[in-house]
Amino acid sequence: MATPTPGRVQRAPENFLAPADIAEVAAGRRGFLRAALVAASAGVAATAARASQGDPAILNLPEHTRGLGQPVAARAYGLPSKHEESLQRRESPGLTRVGAASVSFAPLQGFFGIITPNGLHFERHHQGWWDIDPTRHRLMINGLVKEARVYTMDDLMRLPSVSRMHFIECGANTGMEWGNVAVPTVQYTHGMLSCCEFTGVPLSVLLDECGFDKKRGKFVLAEGADGSSMTRTIPLDRALDDVIVAWAMNGEMLRPENGYPLRLVVPGIQGVSWVKWLRRIEVGDKPWGSKDEVLHYVDLMPDGLHRQYTSIQECKSVITTPSGGQQLLQKGFHNVSGIAWSGRGKVKRVDVSFDGGKNWQTARLETPVLTKCLARFNIGWEWKGGPAILQSRAMDDTGYVQPKLRQLREVRGARSIYHNNAIQSWKVAESGEVSNVQV
Amino acid sequence: MATPTPGRVQRAPENFLAPADIAEVAAGRRGFLRAALVAASAGVAATAARASQGDPAILNLPEHTRGLGQPVAARAYGLPSKHEESLQRRESPGLTRVGAASVSFAPLQGFFGIITPNGLHFERHHQGWWDIDPTRHRLMINGLVKEARVYTMDDLMRLPSVSRMHFIECGANTGMEWGNVAVPTVQYTHGMLSCCEFTGVPLSVLLDECGFDKKRGKFVLAEGADGSSMTRTIPLDRALDDVIVAWAMNGEMLRPENGYPLRLVVPGIQGVSWVKWLRRIEVGDKPWGSKDEVLHYVDLMPDGLHRQYTSIQECKSVITTPSGGQQLLQKGFHNVSGIAWSGRGKVKRVDVSFDGGKNWQTARLETPVLTKCLARFNIGWEWKGGPAILQSRAMDDTGYVQPKLRQLREVRGARSIYHNNAIQSWKVAESGEVSNVQV
Repeated sequence: MATPTPGRVQRAPENFLAPADIAEVAAGRRGFLRAALVAASAGVAATAARASQGDPAILNLPEHTRGLGQPVAARAYGLPSKHEESLQRRESPGLTRVGAASVSFAPLQGFFGIITPNGLHFERHHQGWWDIDPTRHRLMINGLVKEARVYTMDDLMRLPSVSRMHFIECGANTGMEWGNVAVPTVQYTHGMLSCCEFTGVPLSVLLDECGFDKKRGKFVLAEGADGSSMTRTIPLDRALDDVIVAWAMNGEMLRPENGYPLRLVVPGIQGVSWVKWLRRIEVGDKPWGSKDEVLHYVDLMPDGLHRQYTSIQECKSVITTPSGGQQLLQKGFHNVSGIAWSGRGKVKRVDVSFDGGKNWQTARLETPVLTKCLARFNIGWEWKGGPAILQSRAMDDTGYVQPKLRQLREVRGARSIYHNNAIQSWKVAESGEVSNVQV
Repeated sequence: MATPTPGRVQRAPENFLAPADIAEVAAGRRGFLRAALVAASAGVAATAARASQGDPAILNLPEHTRGLGQPVAARAYGLPSKHEESLQRRESPGLTRVGAASVSFAPLQGFFGIITPNGLHFERHHQGWWDIDPTRHRLMINGLVKEARVYTMDDLMRLPSVSRMHFIECGANTGMEWGNVAVPTVQYTHGMLSCCEFTGVPLSVLLDECGFDKKRGKFVLAEGADGSSMTRTIPLDRALDDVIVAWAMNGEMLRPENGYPLRLVVPGIQGVSWVKWLRRIEVGDKPWGSKDEVLHYVDLMPDGLHRQYTSIQECKSVITTPSGGQQLLQKGFHNVSGIAWSGRGKVKRVDVSFDGGKNWQTARLETPVLTKCLARFNIGWEWKGGPAILQSRAMDDTGYVQPKLRQLREVRGARSIYHNNAIQSWKVAESGEVSNVQV
């Protein structure tokens, strides 16, 4: 790994150290700092005293080193710093006619690690979101079962629960890139993606409890309680595998925008199947072919036909820092960071190229690397100041390798909307400006 | 595991199904639901039409199944449901004289999995919290180094970063229980505990860059920028091991209450060493013995002497559901859930007793189980309606077993404040009421 460039010695912390003081410190003479430490420890009283004597060193201290700050529980539920207010989930203007049937994209360029903060989780609604009263919410299990049942939230939350970390990605994520539209930032290219620790009861527990028909049962239908009556078919073998009827995300109850009080978690499968405000699971013997399966979320192929039920989100990755719209301020060492994921299992390896795919280096994967979950990668890069094209290429434990956009288009054409998992390219100009390019 | 009791068949989802309808469903006749589905799918127009004809079934539909909900990005930064507002971090009234030098406890009774939502992370301030401007914040590395340096946030965030999940626990957590005070809820017994995915640069990278004195350097001092000038000594070997200079928690920048824009992450060590608003790291040849090391966070022993530098948080666990102040509503199956952790490594096993420690059963650990991180455990319990005493006992991968309160008191007496990692007991009365007892 390249050696980090030294941070320039600038004004000292909170500018109460003059360059001469810093020289003192550099020379390892601790006396000065002891004094500074004692002065600081003496706290408000001494500070006030010295300030009253017009001591300039003290008058220069920023307020937060002198006064009493905010008390605990000043905010019973905390919020980000006011200096982070520009980091928001954002709707793409004009993407849809009404905001209640639209998308807000997560600001991946400002994320770290693999956990998505609940307040910045992406949104996709078909008829808007509601804050449903959990005491009135019910889940029905019916169809090919011995005994149809209706559960209250209390009923569900008494059952054996599991907690697992999984990514959720909309099938239309990166959809604009199918054509020649290179949207400017990673928030809009890849922001229909989030990752949480979900807690709930395995769907298999509920199906067992209701005595599902092991002979005739082949599929389940999941139905939402909002006005769009979102319905999705899920093969029974998958439903019995790792699907969760979840009430919690990242340690707390689901957010209203994400299906409070109950949603389906279908690991590795496109987000539309993670039915929000879940009110019903029906066991059946054939796919339902509901409107959101037949008319939407199907891949338009070059021959004009639609390929249905492409539901697994294939292996994919993207560099988030640096990414489109950002600016490299200086030559020298930069930590290049991004995320990788696969709907089929674990990310096995991520390679990064700084020259548009001619040469590749293997990045460092942060641990833990979990199945059907985001993985964070990091790699050091010495930017010499010339133009460069940054790419990341992920591999999963099935051996599948993330394709180039050109390779995808050869098979799928350029008119599709869904399931684009191509390698993303970011161009770095000599000015340090980073932009989205298709190579 | 005991078989879950069936959820009673109650009013159907959103009470638009009459008992007769449910019978239809139970009989597996799908026709009815098809009709209901089609009606719902038809959406607002049809609904309005039928409503205008006074169709009672439609008039009974809750608003969220009929109208347009909130648009995406209605809240650029999302918040919990209004139905969850009672889940707050809370200060213990009268615990300290000013709220700026106090504690707010995390509501563990409402948490799931291992991730603590940033908005509910516990707080401990010594002179209150501030929202420091990151463009003006600096970190100085000085002392026994070749070249003392001052870093801006930009300097730091360009360096190689890591992302790791760790718990943070205040050394005084569960402190009230040393005496005979059994505080009522798990929020107040164990709520000075949280767990996040932290991102930052390893301290070892910064010390290497500044050329620390490998021969004379034995300790580092970490100093905070707030008025309390919090300073803590950390042995150099630990500083070079897994200590992180962190700017992010759970995917986003640190919260102001948690040290924005920079804090120290010292895995496995009591929270007071995780210096917030970090402004300086000094390399030295002996411990500093600063006020928060000599006068506070030291264990008062029965002989009246203080045991200093007890910094590792030993293996510990607690049942969070059910816990003090909660109420079991029905006999039958209950999922019993809790958390376990160890400052020395990974949790190896958690046993649970329902009879005050006479008999123990091994609980299920959710994965991943990570080093110096919370682990979530679950176990099924058939409550027959009689009195019971619930306990959890954790073991870590060093072979250490969480002690009984009596065992701890034999060694440490009852006058200490810090480092109580004893087994917690929750009494379940015949009424189903759960309370804190010391056995």
